[in-house]
Amino acid sequence: MQALTPTDTSQIDPVDFAAALIRRPSITPIDAGALDTLQSALEDLGFVCTRYPFGEGEDRVDNLYARLGTSAPNFCFAGHTDVVPTGEPSKWAHAPFAGTVKDGQLHGRGAADMKGAIAAFVGALSELLGRGWTPNGSVSFLITGDEEGPAINGTEKLLKAITEAGEVIDHCLVGEPTNPDAIGDMIKNGRRGSLNAKIAVHGRQGHVAYPHRALNPVPVLMDLLSRVQARELDTGHEFFQPSNLEVTTIDVGNTAHNVIAETARAQFNIRFNTHHRGDDLIAWIKSVIADVQDGFDGTIEANLRCTGEAFLTEPCGFTTIIQNAVEAVTGRRPALSTSGGTSDARYITHYAPVCEFGLVGATMHQVDERVDVADITTLTKIYSHILQDYFS
Amino acid sequence: MQALTPTDTSQIDPVDFAAALIRRPSITPIDAGALDTLQSALEDLGFVCTRYPFGEGEDRVDNLYARLGTSAPNFCFAGHTDVVPTGEPSKWAHAPFAGTVKDGQLHGRGAADMKGAIAAFVGALSELLGRGWTPNGSVSFLITGDEEGPAINGTEKLLKAITEAGEVIDHCLVGEPTNPDAIGDMIKNGRRGSLNAKIAVHGRQGHVAYPHRALNPVPVLMDLLSRVQARELDTGHEFFQPSNLEVTTIDVGNTAHNVIAETARAQFNIRFNTHHRGDDLIAWIKSVIADVQDGFDGTIEANLRCTGEAFLTEPCGFTTIIQNAVEAVTGRRPALSTSGGTSDARYITHYAPVCEFGLVGATMHQVDERVDVADITTLTKIYSHILQDYFS
Ligand SMILES: [Zn+2]
Ligand SMILES: [Zn+2]
Repeated sequence: MQALTPTDTSQIDPVDFAAALIRRPSITPIDAGALDTLQSALEDLGFVCTRYPFGEGEDRVDNLYARLGTSAPNFCFAGHTDVVPTGEPSKWAHAPFAGTVKDGQLHGRGAADMKGAIAAFVGALSELLGRGWTPNGSVSFLITGDEEGPAINGTEKLLKAITEAGEVIDHCLVGEPTNPDAIGDMIKNGRRGSLNAKIAVHGRQGHVAYPHRALNPVPVLMDLLSRVQARELDTGHEFFQPSNLEVTTIDVGNTAHNVIAETARAQFNIRFNTHHRGDDLIAWIKSVIADVQDGFDGTIEANLRCTGEAFLTEPCGFTTIIQNAVEAVTGRRPALSTSGGTSDARYITHYAPVCEFGLVGATMHQVDERVDVADITTLTKIYSHILQDYFS
Repeated sequence: MQALTPTDTSQIDPVDFAAALIRRPSITPIDAGALDTLQSALEDLGFVCTRYPFGEGEDRVDNLYARLGTSAPNFCFAGHTDVVPTGEPSKWAHAPFAGTVKDGQLHGRGAADMKGAIAAFVGALSELLGRGWTPNGSVSFLITGDEEGPAINGTEKLLKAITEAGEVIDHCLVGEPTNPDAIGDMIKNGRRGSLNAKIAVHGRQGHVAYPHRALNPVPVLMDLLSRVQARELDTGHEFFQPSNLEVTTIDVGNTAHNVIAETARAQFNIRFNTHHRGDDLIAWIKSVIADVQDGFDGTIEANLRCTGEAFLTEPCGFTTIIQNAVEAVTGRRPALSTSGGTSDARYITHYAPVCEFGLVGATMHQVDERVDVADITTLTKIYSHILQDYFS
């Protein structure tokens, strides 16, 4: 095992560091110095840092891979420094990029999602390294500036690039805010997949009094949507809710009550579990469209896009380490869950077993995003516990 | 029988008079002098004219009732001097209110619908009265300036007002452009009814990843529309096509593919024959809504409005007079039909047997509305034939 030589072991306070990150208004794709702030702290702790900018011009996004140590196993902490927009700043009780601590809460965009968790992991390492602890392997950070945006120039490309550079990740912990209400609620050991469908049915315009001269696209679209809605995709899975399809919009935009419109459009989204793969669902939707098209004189256009496959990290030693750490610090055993939206863990799963645990997500993406200062301290202890257990 | 004393028997040329009416840009609710032009001609022919303005301010619309003679039977010619807007005037081959005659066609907004027919009826009377003919009863004009608009301050109120003034109409001929392709094609002896429904389903907004926290209004709306669409209203009637329902629009307006919207809206229109009455259809739609509402936690709003009942003038002596006149002049026996949209005949049917016959409607409501000059001459002869036959 290689000797580690942190250059500076003065401890980093995780709450102060979270506030410092919040003060960088890093709304995707803008970095605003957030990665520099993180990199500087990691370099002080002895990490070797490499930046991976992807994309051109306005789409350019910066990414950071940092590693302490060179031996295996490589425990990776993954996350993002970018944040979603604030909406109208005047609606916030405290300026969204001020990083204000008030009445035991840290306020600001990114406090929960997920600068607070990054700061907790840095704080845990700083404390461990400061008292002479060294990982029996390596610790790395995989941090993107493109998670909240289109996610085209982020984690997926970063994983490919570091792999080409010879990096191997053995296990990965993502710091997304996985707890619905209180810290210790929930670990995510998988995520459902997501598929977006945009459908346009083109018929022939006409007057309602002469329907035989027109071709109303609306009943055809309704037929198509009814057919996809009618399928019970599955009844769920040991670790997953049943897959679910939601029609999110139908739009014709016809204001004339006596006119049959030419085009009707709709969108639906499928959140699916590991019983399905995106390609199979797309093939099924295409077959439904072909059935509806059969005998219909107009045309049906479809734009079908799977934005993430379902994945599952089966309960294993790694998930147990995380559950044990949460229980040791909070006194509660967290649930393993695959509920909710997607995250960058959908990319990481192709490289290493991945789990997610972070702060409380109740205010994420909202006005007055905030976290309890006590939760940052608790999360710092949990991350410290995980690191010690993993390398013991 | 009362003696008739036309004050001026110099003949009115129907094509010139149609052009004079077209030169009055009487887009509903503006009159622009159209009724004055008509009234002046009718007064010259000996008619007693009474104006019936209804509505206030911008909604004010003028209407005209004119009668020649006081004895029964009273043969009424009904119609409207208002026209639909022109759209972009530069798209017209001839200025829409110039009343240009070119290559045997009279061009202009209202040429077909229905200033040309009014002029033909005036021309027929002028010629008959000029050569000493007198009706064995009375001839009247029932002319509104609110047929193409909301039709609130038009024929319906006019009929009520003249009835209160002691007027009785025995038979009514409406000069709408009833011929699809060539003059002599078609008499309308009835019209389908029309019902407009506006539906709004209110659920609860949420994220597609957490559908159990939201209440998607879209499937509820689709269920409602599917149920109303599924009913075969009837299989038609001796004089009517089957009743028909068309969903004309569905609108959610949700641009976020990961959000379940709060509200979904739709509109549909029913064109129905005499197997139905508006109130019965409204009661049925309400019962479908109640079934869908049952077990749905959100709310369903409905705005249901019958804008005209179906009516039928059974073939009779009056319809035969019109058919015979058309056949005598054109050599073709016109069909009796109830197809197409609604007309003000839906109000007149409550007062007297009513039929419709006018010019060719192919260009009505379109850019470059126009009629053949020869058709105006033919229609003038047909109207003359009808008047002579009716009073013989
Ligand atoms: Zn996040
Ligand atoms: Zn008309």
